[in-house]
Amino acid sequence: MNKLLKVTGAGALTLLAAMPALAQDAAAAPDAAADPSPYIFTTLLFLMGGFLVFWMAAGFAMLEAGLVRSKNVTMQLTKNISLFGIAAIMYWLVGFNLMYPGDGWWIAGWMGPFFSITSLEPVGLAAADASLDYASVGSDFFFQLMFCATTASIVSGTLAERIKLWPFLIFVVVLTGFIYPIEASWQWGGGWLSEFGFSDFAGSTLVHAAGGFAALAGAIVLGPRIGKYGADGKVNPILGSNMPLATLGTFILWLGWFGFNGGSQLAMGTVGDVTDVSRIFANTNMAAAAGAVAALILTQVVYGKVDLTMVLNGALAGLVSITAEPLAPSLFGALLTGAVGGVIVVFTVPMLDKFKIDDVVGAIPVHLIAGVWGTLAVAFYTGGWVPQIVGIVSIGAFVFIVSLVVWLILKATMGIRVGEEEEVNGLDSTELGMEAYPEFAKG
Amino acid sequence: MNKLLKVTGAGALTLLAAMPALAQDAAAAPDAAADPSPYIFTTLLFLMGGFLVFWMAAGFAMLEAGLVRSKNVTMQLTKNISLFGIAAIMYWLVGFNLMYPGDGWWIAGWMGPFFSITSLEPVGLAAADASLDYASVGSDFFFQLMFCATTASIVSGTLAERIKLWPFLIFVVVLTGFIYPIEASWQWGGGWLSEFGFSDFAGSTLVHAAGGFAALAGAIVLGPRIGKYGADGKVNPILGSNMPLATLGTFILWLGWFGFNGGSQLAMGTVGDVTDVSRIFANTNMAAAAGAVAALILTQVVYGKVDLTMVLNGALAGLVSITAEPLAPSLFGALLTGAVGGVIVVFTVPMLDKFKIDDVVGAIPVHLIAGVWGTLAVAFYTGGWVPQIVGIVSIGAFVFIVSLVVWLILKATMGIRVGEEEEVNGLDSTELGMEAYPEFAKG
Amino acid sequence: MNKLLKVTGAGALTLLAAMPALAQDAAAAPDAAADPSPYIFTTLLFLMGGFLVFWMAAGFAMLEAGLVRSKNVTMQLTKNISLFGIAAIMYWLVGFNLMYPGDGWWIAGWMGPFFSITSLEPVGLAAADASLDYASVGSDFFFQLMFCATTASIVSGTLAERIKLWPFLIFVVVLTGFIYPIEASWQWGGGWLSEFGFSDFAGSTLVHAAGGFAALAGAIVLGPRIGKYGADGKVNPILGSNMPLATLGTFILWLGWFGFNGGSQLAMGTVGDVTDVSRIFANTNMAAAAGAVAALILTQVVYGKVDLTMVLNGALAGLVSITAEPLAPSLFGALLTGAVGGVIVVFTVPMLDKFKIDDVVGAIPVHLIAGVWGTLAVAFYTGGWVPQIVGIVSIGAFVFIVSLVVWLILKATMGIRVGEEEEVNGLDSTELGMEAYPEFAKG
Repeated sequence: MNKLLKVTGAGALTLLAAMPALAQDAAAAPDAAADPSPYIFTTLLFLMGGFLVFWMAAGFAMLEAGLVRSKNVTMQLTKNISLFGIAAIMYWLVGFNLMYPGDGWWIAGWMGPFFSITSLEPVGLAAADASLDYASVGSDFFFQLMFCATTASIVSGTLAERIKLWPFLIFVVVLTGFIYPIEASWQWGGGWLSEFGFSDFAGSTLVHAAGGFAALAGAIVLGPRIGKYGADGKVNPILGSNMPLATLGTFILWLGWFGFNGGSQLAMGTVGDVTDVSRIFANTNMAAAAGAVAALILTQVVYGKVDLTMVLNGALAGLVSITAEPLAPSLFGALLTGAVGGVIVVFTVPMLDKFKIDDVVGAIPVHLIAGVWGTLAVAFYTGGWVPQIVGIVSIGAFVFIVSLVVWLILKATMGIRVGEEEEVNGLDSTELGMEAYPEFAKG
Repeated sequence: MNKLLKVTGAGALTLLAAMPALAQDAAAAPDAAADPSPYIFTTLLFLMGGFLVFWMAAGFAMLEAGLVRSKNVTMQLTKNISLFGIAAIMYWLVGFNLMYPGDGWWIAGWMGPFFSITSLEPVGLAAADASLDYASVGSDFFFQLMFCATTASIVSGTLAERIKLWPFLIFVVVLTGFIYPIEASWQWGGGWLSEFGFSDFAGSTLVHAAGGFAALAGAIVLGPRIGKYGADGKVNPILGSNMPLATLGTFILWLGWFGFNGGSQLAMGTVGDVTDVSRIFANTNMAAAAGAVAALILTQVVYGKVDLTMVLNGALAGLVSITAEPLAPSLFGALLTGAVGGVIVVFTVPMLDKFKIDDVVGAIPVHLIAGVWGTLAVAFYTGGWVPQIVGIVSIGAFVFIVSLVVWLILKATMGIRVGEEEEVNGLDSTELGMEAYPEFAKG
Repeated sequence: MNKLLKVTGAGALTLLAAMPALAQDAAAAPDAAADPSPYIFTTLLFLMGGFLVFWMAAGFAMLEAGLVRSKNVTMQLTKNISLFGIAAIMYWLVGFNLMYPGDGWWIAGWMGPFFSITSLEPVGLAAADASLDYASVGSDFFFQLMFCATTASIVSGTLAERIKLWPFLIFVVVLTGFIYPIEASWQWGGGWLSEFGFSDFAGSTLVHAAGGFAALAGAIVLGPRIGKYGADGKVNPILGSNMPLATLGTFILWLGWFGFNGGSQLAMGTVGDVTDVSRIFANTNMAAAAGAVAALILTQVVYGKVDLTMVLNGALAGLVSITAEPLAPSLFGALLTGAVGGVIVVFTVPMLDKFKIDDVVGAIPVHLIAGVWGTLAVAFYTGGWVPQIVGIVSIGAFVFIVSLVVWLILKATMGIRVGEEEEVNGLDSTELGMEAYPEFAKG
């Protein structure tokens, strides 16, 4: 079963195997093994899904560049493009084989996968040598890599405006090479969580809450920005410098999410699969729309004014919420799931401030809290509350504790926070010597 | 026929049915019903087309954010993301079934479609239960929804910088839930216009001119911005605040348009269909290029200086112009159609000012006037001038009058225009309390 | 062979023909000619690849708008959208048929191709009339056109901030209508270079170095910007005005490059082809990541500070480097190829300044020098050093010399450089009368 799961890559298989449609399709085409079309379609799904999720890296970069102050924008951009480069290398060097260990789960195969660098199929693969019931390894690697990079992108926003570049990038090395692949292997690598019945279609917990837990550990170790929390307990809002960029980033993420969730169907070569992918696209869009509209209405009602950043984060929370199960719900179910995500954001962003956890872009409410909500909501469809809770708690505890240890080691050794003067003057001029908008006067 | 048209969704069917290529393809594959590939290809066309047209929502947001003054940018972004969320919900709740009424045209089925919320196929649809000669309902809904949202995006640009948020969003509810689905059903839902011989492949009139008419009605009711038209009849140009955003928006729209027009082929599972989709891509690109180059040359000749916003709007007008018939023309025909679109923009933008109709981004010249041109130009291929004129006039009259009534009701009840002080100080600080660029000094 | 090469369009054919996988696939499906799926898949590859490479035009526009000073941004945007429009028209009018001359190579067929404007297949092409072993002509034209436009995009960045609009656009007419199609026909049109054994999969030399050589000739004729090189030999850095735009542009180019390289497989209808496309996607991504990370580490080591623009250009140089052979390398090979590209950028950007060649955005290091590196690196896989060197030298000499002549003629006739006062005050206000950011105060 592990082998099989390595090939298929996600828990969705169990669901699919139970579907009569597949059997019927197979019956209608007795020598289906010789037809390369399903293999080509599914490979194409991974390539399209992969480039769409790649595009999310740009979305995070723009969102974060828009939500930090102009004195820290170059740093935030530098972090975002660098973390993607590092993730691409680490996932190839270690992550992919650690996540899909094949013949044995990761403890047993530790030394194996660790040194087993990913290699692709030979050029001009013969049909006889291909996994005709799945897809090209290259496309699968390309697609899965993007999920690993997304996890790291989530962290960079929370810790913006005060973390040093290199400790952050070293954390990314650990996160993308080890932390993410290990916890993801518990479910998508055929590990104990998948055997326990945990369900997380495209990664509300495996990707989004995991990224959020790593960010939370970092935010605690790093502390809030200077001036964010007054001595009198007052919370000082720090405004983002560029709303069009933040909005562009949100639209990019929304677009990329069709690949994130749609590609996680892991198959597009049958009527049933492509129809499911369509269902996922429609549900993903609905959840995002509902999250945005919920935040729109709620900020008007609660604060008397619509808050654009809440609407943007509402859309993103809707997307995170539906990610654990974008297939099973009806459009109305997707609307409810996404709307609750939007409501969560409006109420939990101020809550974090009570604990003096300074999350610059709201990544913890959006990715962690809405991710937990989305993962729990799966139980409305499966009935299995216990596996969902066990999955969230075990992944949350693992990612949070290991991240905390790594952050503490980084803090103790090289230091993770820039000096006070650097922070006040901005990281762009002091750390990088390059301003993002050198010609524009500050108002 | 209605039923059939509901399944296929557009007038293009008539064209296709007449093609010998299809019959030939069918003959070559006698048990084609058992082959799921055409269904998968067409579903994939809708998914790709759909995410490309989704991306146009970001294009409108960036274009408009670039063309308004910096004091109104947050408001414009808020409107754009909110209108998309609302469109997604309304089209599901009412629009899709109102537009494709199935057993009867909309008057007859009024109570039916109104309460008939869209639902998707079951998970893991069996091939035997699928419309193998078309595509997944989910993908079709996803694709059609994006057209509905586009219609609303067109309106927001014209009315920028002085309209209140909530009346605008209420208008969007009516437009996306009722006005657009009703007029679109006349043609794409198998209604009287399609029976009358009207031809509008991807919606030069059904989407673009319709959005333009709704915007025109709003602009008349709302009145021009303070300071736009001097007491002496002088027109004061009001410059956009961010040209890179406006250019980015145009490129996004251009990219999305490949999905808009290409997806409207509604089929990709045969040699003939995929070749037609290719033809549409090439023609769409040519029309945009010709519109841009026409405006480039014309502004140099007429004004002695190239005008970037005219070049951008020229490209968009080229795209709108070819949308009514992107398949039939040769590349040279596409070039002519698009170039005329570009010329139209250069001459009609100043014309609107003569009537003191204040269209902030030029959406009426681009979408309404070029849309009418493109729809008329179809008659060069079909010979049917009368159906084209009847289609334009009936849709224009319907959308304009209903929109006018809705705008007047909104004006009379809740008011649609911000106060003078709010307008002068900008909607971002007064209505939303969030500036788009809070750190940048005004020059 | 010419005819065949016209149909397939690139040297990759030779490689593919030698693969046993294809023969095997064909054997498994004896009446493959009747199956339209491979034709549809390959056409789809061109459409997807084409819209992704189209998107690169937006990437160049954003990258360049971010790297010039704010007083020249509108001009840079105008050039970018205009050059794309011109390329689309010239490639249709002359280029495509000049590049793929069919029955004879271009000298013999000069008058033929010159007056042979591109036309597409008829609407509703019958399967019997289609090149079932390839793809739709429309999709091929659409895809190839984007490569032509890319070549022109490369030139605009180098010459920014001092070249007049119209001479630049006239150069684009010559480049996209004649220079690029002629040199590209030597290889992809079945010309003498392809017969000589030159190998350039997706155009490290044919597109990128060619664009770089045209830019180099222009930079020499045009001279450096005022103030760039002090009288004392000091190099004055001129900062880009908007780092988020430059970063966005880089992400857009990275995304588009999947289409650029992946689409150049020119086939997706077999197991072997789609697996190769996957391999290309994974390798392309790895090379970009490695280029970015190499520049990240190297700027820290060499300058003591990370330089974002170097990281961005490092990613782009990684992409250019892998473009000559994105299929054959392992992921590790792609990493090395891309990393060398990133190193090249860090060391050659300052080198150009020694020769007082003022390349505003670093296009010559990224596209020309990394392009040459990538083309040479192919010989590690093929062993054929001589054809690679001959290809680079002959294309470089041809493009450089013809470009130089054209630039000199333009300089002698209409002048190519704006006046000193215009340059100091900025091209936006003096040449176009439209500032990019009219409301923002200069700091």
